[in-house]
Amino acid sequence: MAKIGVVLSGCGVYDGSEIHEAVITLLAIDRAGAEAVCMAPDMEQMHVVNHLTGEPAAGESRNVLVESARIARGDIRDIKDVAAGDIDALILPGGFGAAKNLCDFAVKGADCSVQPDVARLVRAVLGAKKPLAAVCIAPALVSKVLGNEKLAHQLTIGTDAGTAGALESMGSTHVACPVSEFVIDRENKLVSTPAYMLAGSIKEAAEGIEKTVRALVELI
Amino acid sequence: MAKIGVVLSGCGVYDGSEIHEAVITLLAIDRAGAEAVCMAPDMEQMHVVNHLTGEPAAGESRNVLVESARIARGDIRDIKDVAAGDIDALILPGGFGAAKNLCDFAVKGADCSVQPDVARLVRAVLGAKKPLAAVCIAPALVSKVLGNEKLAHQLTIGTDAGTAGALESMGSTHVACPVSEFVIDRENKLVSTPAYMLAGSIKEAAEGIEKTVRALVELI
Repeated sequence: MAKIGVVLSGCGVYDGSEIHEAVITLLAIDRAGAEAVCMAPDMEQMHVVNHLTGEPAAGESRNVLVESARIARGDIRDIKDVAAGDIDALILPGGFGAAKNLCDFAVKGADCSVQPDVARLVRAVLGAKKPLAAVCIAPALVSKVLGNEKLAHQLTIGTDAGTAGALESMGSTHVACPVSEFVIDRENKLVSTPAYMLAGSIKEAAEGIEKTVRALVELI
Repeated sequence: MAKIGVVLSGCGVYDGSEIHEAVITLLAIDRAGAEAVCMAPDMEQMHVVNHLTGEPAAGESRNVLVESARIARGDIRDIKDVAAGDIDALILPGGFGAAKNLCDFAVKGADCSVQPDVARLVRAVLGAKKPLAAVCIAPALVSKVLGNEKLAHQLTIGTDAGTAGALESMGSTHVACPVSEFVIDRENKLVSTPAYMLAGSIKEAAEGIEKTVRALVELI
């Protein structure tokens, strides 16, 4: 059974993993006959957002690995202990956590840095010619890692011109893509889909994510 | 478009809503052409569980409505403001939150009490002959409300003899049911499915929940 690493970044769209995207990813992996290996960095979140008001919760702090464990029902690993050899493919769901915790793209845009254990695993997976998928805003992180390596590659972040421009300036070729589809870079075994960068409802996000997971599994 | 109320109880299997069950429910509602109306009580959780260790987090407190908003992406109502006339059907996903926050079945078993706003809405929905579904452990709460009303009815909690016995002693007729199926009580427009009471994987939980939502929508 193929093992697919799933990199989580907390639990909630505004400060962690987008929960719908993460769960739809886990379900699609299981239905594809593969096994999900959930992982996250053991570090404090950039901040905690009250999802009822949309405002930062003053004085609160939460740990990315501990909160991600909610989505994984406790079955999760510290990403620093995961090697490319442990998995057959890697997928990164979106949510602001991918741009606030796994890297700081939400604050610094194209000048962001990527959390070192996440950057190491992304480089190692692609270096081993294993496939990688990124959902929603997570392609920003992949763009930064591959741009730093000067590796020509294609990604989508949907259709937002500003965000797409940031990806281009980090070194990606950005390909516009509707929510129901995905972009595949066969040379680099790289798959991406806009999900909630564009989705107006959960079924719209699901359609692109389900296709992305199937494409990822076929690339193994 | 039919409106289906979704009662959440926090965000995480051990102290709130089971996240997979909640998201699969929201996706199935959207795919059935209906609209989800998320709601939760504005109250403190019984406790906070660290989902990495499985242990209660000493000194931490979280609010059920605020944490449920993570699953609802901020689009959620205080259940005390929701009337049966606002919705066409109601569904309660599981997770320990349904037995720790929406009622105290996890602590008191058959002697539990149900949170008053939740009990009021369950009674009002069934009193208005609108359909109601309960997933995983949530049938315990429905059993208590209907048992108090002396209303003969059928529910499933899966196959666990102890939990099924508690439902029987609260006044339900318990019907054993495999994870991939659901039990329907047409007289009372009541649907239930075991989900993670029995599921060994997310796709097993999804199969029963998807069938349950379809049955719920057909009963409208």
